[in-house]
Amino acid sequence: MDVAVDASLVEQHVFELARHGAFGETGVWRTVYSPEWAAAQEQVASWFADAGLEVRRDAVGNVWGRLSGEEAGSVIATGSHIDSQTPGGRYDGALGVIAALTALRALHAQVGRPRRTVEAVSLCEEEGSRFHAANFWGSRAITGTIAADEPEQMTDFDGVPMADAMRAVGLDPERIPEAVRDDIDTWIELHIEQGPILEEEELPVGVVDAITGIRHYVVELVGRSDHAGARPMRSRLDPMQGFAEIASGVIGIALEDAPPAVTTVGRVHVEPNLPAAVPDRVTFTVDSRHPDPQKLNEQYARQEQLMKEVAGRRGLEISWQAPLDLPPSLCDPGVVDALEDAAREQGIPFRRMHSGAGHDTQNMARIAKTAMLFVRSEGGRSHTPAEFTTVEDAVAGIRVLAATLHGLAYD
Amino acid sequence: MDVAVDASLVEQHVFELARHGAFGETGVWRTVYSPEWAAAQEQVASWFADAGLEVRRDAVGNVWGRLSGEEAGSVIATGSHIDSQTPGGRYDGALGVIAALTALRALHAQVGRPRRTVEAVSLCEEEGSRFHAANFWGSRAITGTIAADEPEQMTDFDGVPMADAMRAVGLDPERIPEAVRDDIDTWIELHIEQGPILEEEELPVGVVDAITGIRHYVVELVGRSDHAGARPMRSRLDPMQGFAEIASGVIGIALEDAPPAVTTVGRVHVEPNLPAAVPDRVTFTVDSRHPDPQKLNEQYARQEQLMKEVAGRRGLEISWQAPLDLPPSLCDPGVVDALEDAAREQGIPFRRMHSGAGHDTQNMARIAKTAMLFVRSEGGRSHTPAEFTTVEDAVAGIRVLAATLHGLAYD
Repeated sequence: MDVAVDASLVEQHVFELARHGAFGETGVWRTVYSPEWAAAQEQVASWFADAGLEVRRDAVGNVWGRLSGEEAGSVIATGSHIDSQTPGGRYDGALGVIAALTALRALHAQVGRPRRTVEAVSLCEEEGSRFHAANFWGSRAITGTIAADEPEQMTDFDGVPMADAMRAVGLDPERIPEAVRDDIDTWIELHIEQGPILEEEELPVGVVDAITGIRHYVVELVGRSDHAGARPMRSRLDPMQGFAEIASGVIGIALEDAPPAVTTVGRVHVEPNLPAAVPDRVTFTVDSRHPDPQKLNEQYARQEQLMKEVAGRRGLEISWQAPLDLPPSLCDPGVVDALEDAAREQGIPFRRMHSGAGHDTQNMARIAKTAMLFVRSEGGRSHTPAEFTTVEDAVAGIRVLAATLHGLAYD
Repeated sequence: MDVAVDASLVEQHVFELARHGAFGETGVWRTVYSPEWAAAQEQVASWFADAGLEVRRDAVGNVWGRLSGEEAGSVIATGSHIDSQTPGGRYDGALGVIAALTALRALHAQVGRPRRTVEAVSLCEEEGSRFHAANFWGSRAITGTIAADEPEQMTDFDGVPMADAMRAVGLDPERIPEAVRDDIDTWIELHIEQGPILEEEELPVGVVDAITGIRHYVVELVGRSDHAGARPMRSRLDPMQGFAEIASGVIGIALEDAPPAVTTVGRVHVEPNLPAAVPDRVTFTVDSRHPDPQKLNEQYARQEQLMKEVAGRRGLEISWQAPLDLPPSLCDPGVVDALEDAAREQGIPFRRMHSGAGHDTQNMARIAKTAMLFVRSEGGRSHTPAEFTTVEDAVAGIRVLAATLHGLAYD
């Protein structure tokens, strides 16, 4: 089909959605179950309704828009998440929600009722930017992987339990199991690339055939605080020295196997954090990723061994947790083929690639055939107010998405 | 003289003073011009008066207790500071104030009016724990090295100007010049060692003949924030990688010349400080010290060159300031001799040593002959609630101090 997309409306939606939780000129600060999050989901629900979709909010606050098919049976679903980093930009997650809306609107307007039901969804949470351990709360609810005690046990960075955060926006944590879906046959997520590869290769669109595995270590390194002048160097138990060696070491292990290995130390907390005191304690995160399951396990093992070795040699206590631990996820070859066929049909240049970022799609792979579409990110930037995707690239992605849904749901 | 010191009263004073700003079981959190600081200075003033001293508060809130001599002329002064780290312990600074009080009380009670005037002082600020750039506010006021614009320009970590902090406790920043003293001939400060040397050598007391030079660098390293998964390693501008290399490097330079060189990275601030984002910016302190002026300058030069080299090679922007920059300070040989003679006279074992910590004494050296007395610190610990000095060691130091003052002011 010749998919008709109103580019100016797409752009307008991007800007309007970004007003909810606006941070500075181009940033967004919209954490799950915050007032600005609730306003954004209201906005999406209103757009879904205007596009002729049947709107439904599920038990964790995912907002669904349904285009019912003529046949009963399983569903083709597409969407992304509405929450942001703190701060993030206007495109991460949000563009996939707008793409789902725009694709379904175009199908409804141009070709009417589908044979198979198609749904758009705005997922409640993906970033872990309020609850570090939420771990894709929206898609975990849909796939039935939220444990019964999580809502009360899990707390945000201010100590607020997830259950209280849900109640604050009118959701009942007891009802989370009602969000489970067992009728989704195919899941497609459009997302900004968040990296520089499409830009470097001058391509508007990427078809994603695998998603990297990710582990987040939260590492605590404990030494002994001392006066910065009076304690001689040789008798220090300085966790900052250990941290510096570990940060260089774990990153160095990824550098040896990069690409596609990546490792990032993004968060550091020092106690007591005074200029003239050797610290007592340095707590930091290690984000370690590789798309190949075996190589990923080797990478983790080497990094853990290095951390233990450095701490042991320096007389520091070390411990860690892994609040996020996701295996690599392979996409469905049939859905990947369908996306490639649609891109060719629409005359849009593309390449296959893996995703270095985690996505709700890897959870959806538990219950559905999946694949993803990437659109080019200016400068490869993401998780920052500076992230930007041109409306032309967004429209190219939406046309591929709509044409794919057309192929799957109407033929 | 046979100095009589009531050990239980010394211990009681330590505990009573620590109640003002008590933090946990043994900690103290008492920053300059806070309500707990004001209460502590009130307590000291009351003790000075009870000991028969003439009490005076100067324009920056230093509290003086005077034992007037029979002769006019210059003064012998002793004391230390009343503020603490955040948190610090019960001994750093406070013990020197209690020692001055106790020594003057003993002299007044045992040998009456001195020939030369002796003063005890509780200095208002030394730690830089509220105003990073205060830089020994109390002794700078006495030595006339506070610039006219400092009270309004300098702000604390919450942005409060020094002038406002002074007004909040009833001090007029316009009157700071009135705190200047030009009549102090000799200054002696008793202080806990804050390091492990006396403990290792099983000595209660150290006679300090030099104070280390210190520079605090506040370094800002700027790169580019990127997604932790989607940005390949090779094209990152990651200030955390640069920070880790610099921290290891500047500490390594001190290790090569240690002892007595020391270097500490104690404070780190990361932006945006998220697990899944390459940071934009890492800001950190480097505390670099050496008691030898020439070697200290070589150490600074090597550390600065390393910081520039690492940043340049990694494509990171680097800049720094040095809000604290104190040259090494040599003590007066005559006062050092007087302290050693007094220790021998009192039968108290001691050693000569340098101070790896900065002290008000290095400012007082601008206007007076100076030296310091150290007392043993358990485990060498300081700038932590865990710091501890036995009352026996405190009394040993006080006896040396009192005997020295007796020799200088009564003979």
